[in-house]
Amino acid sequence: MKFDITILGCGSATPTLVRNPTSQVVNIMERYMMIDCAEGTQLQLRKYKVAFQKIDHIFISHLHGDHYLGLVGLISSFHLFGRNKTLHIYGPVELERIIFDQLKASNTFLCYQIEFHALINNSTELIFQDNILEVHTIPLNHRIYCNGFLFKEKKKERRLSKELITKYNIPVEMMPKLKKGEDPIGEGWDDLKNKDLTLPAQRSRSYAFCSDTRYSESIVPLIQNVDVLYHESTFLDDMKDRAKSTFHSTAKQAAMIAIKANVNELLLGHYSARYLSIVGFEKEAKEVFANVKAVKDGDTISIPL
Amino acid sequence: MKFDITILGCGSATPTLVRNPTSQVVNIMERYMMIDCAEGTQLQLRKYKVAFQKIDHIFISHLHGDHYLGLVGLISSFHLFGRNKTLHIYGPVELERIIFDQLKASNTFLCYQIEFHALINNSTELIFQDNILEVHTIPLNHRIYCNGFLFKEKKKERRLSKELITKYNIPVEMMPKLKKGEDPIGEGWDDLKNKDLTLPAQRSRSYAFCSDTRYSESIVPLIQNVDVLYHESTFLDDMKDRAKSTFHSTAKQAAMIAIKANVNELLLGHYSARYLSIVGFEKEAKEVFANVKAVKDGDTISIPL
Repeated sequence: MKFDITILGCGSATPTLVRNPTSQVVNIMERYMMIDCAEGTQLQLRKYKVAFQKIDHIFISHLHGDHYLGLVGLISSFHLFGRNKTLHIYGPVELERIIFDQLKASNTFLCYQIEFHALINNSTELIFQDNILEVHTIPLNHRIYCNGFLFKEKKKERRLSKELITKYNIPVEMMPKLKKGEDPIGEGWDDLKNKDLTLPAQRSRSYAFCSDTRYSESIVPLIQNVDVLYHESTFLDDMKDRAKSTFHSTAKQAAMIAIKANVNELLLGHYSARYLSIVGFEKEAKEVFANVKAVKDGDTISIPL
Repeated sequence: MKFDITILGCGSATPTLVRNPTSQVVNIMERYMMIDCAEGTQLQLRKYKVAFQKIDHIFISHLHGDHYLGLVGLISSFHLFGRNKTLHIYGPVELERIIFDQLKASNTFLCYQIEFHALINNSTELIFQDNILEVHTIPLNHRIYCNGFLFKEKKKERRLSKELITKYNIPVEMMPKLKKGEDPIGEGWDDLKNKDLTLPAQRSRSYAFCSDTRYSESIVPLIQNVDVLYHESTFLDDMKDRAKSTFHSTAKQAAMIAIKANVNELLLGHYSARYLSIVGFEKEAKEVFANVKAVKDGDTISIPL
């Protein structure tokens, strides 16, 4: 029942020997979803032993190079490794041409399909769902069109336990309705309610990725109560003017958003290369919000049930 | 009087943790020229401490991803580092759109100029020259349009020595003509010839880069007598059929080209990722041609005067 976020790159702007630019893989019960794919992401996947070929969905926040320049290489490698499953890519509309122009120039006819999902809206939208999971966009306030992404388990069903099934001799055909929360009906069940026969549903976990963005309270309603919020902190707060002018945030501002959105845990990343040490980020954010972690390449954060 | 070739990537197809795909920097007397620019090349420049900003010319052999997917990232980093010199890029015609589409999508207005030189010819051409150096294309036989590059010092002038200047009291105004090989004229010089007053010119050094290519003797006249030949060897000779069908070469074939072209030294590279060790490449080629080196990332090969 995993809900793991693996940081493949926590840097910004340009790759350095200590930090790769942005990429993450979210593994939600064996659904591998990549967020952003900076140059060098392929090597990070190898380095941190993430199963390449399990990735079926790639979400690109925006078209600054430090968020997508590894994508065409990854697409090519999938081809060289003989992939045959469809790859879904979600990103700004121009990305489609960028990808297919490069495949055309290399005369590559992929051995698998790419399904491209163009993002063009300026308000939040549901862009993926299956039986357990939803992904929504989080429109961000950046220099160019940019979305964060909210990964949210769907509302789960109430649970049956062996003990209760045996105690009340619950028939199989009644189980689906009980799981949906309906009361039992029929002879002999009049005195019993759903809550007598079932256990509460497990909670639905959620992760919000917000990079790149200026401090913007407009995202607060969209990320309210998430378990984990990744919010960019390109700068420390003594550079908040520079953060504002470059449409980025500071660690303190990320923490202020975390407080307002009542999240459980805050992850910081997207540090400017000027910071050799990232100790100051966690320290600054902690003055505002207690449960914070300044992530490093290779970190995996698990959201428990 | 450097003529150094630094290998930034000796692998092929896809980056691995031991070998980056193709890129090299040739430093010819402080002219820094890059050949190919695979994904990850920026980090290789950092790792091997090559002065980024000295690179003014980038030559792209062809548009397979393992030869150019690091280019847009490098262009962006030049911008972020405040470059103001023109950058010259030489490559297949489609590359120009690929670059500028991506800059447009990121809304980047570079703080320096790019001068793009489209390569479209199928016969060799002179694509760069200054007072000491020429660069010619070497049309290769690959799946898509592909050029190697020949870096050649121009014919040098004859040299004057302090000793001879003093001995014959050579006037300053006569020196340029003497260097060009002309005999001295005027009163008192009748008995002397140029060779009495000057030393022979230093030899002109040359480097040929040939990747990617099938075994093809058509390149032999273009690379005749070069000091150093880099010839791709994606495979060992037991896979020569696969080499042929994928338009690549084997180590033995590279050595056969080296013999026919009478080069001084052969460098091997562009190894398939299937070879964990590259020991077999040097061994195989040595059976045909003695002076061979299977290069590794980070190697620098110097051509002496």
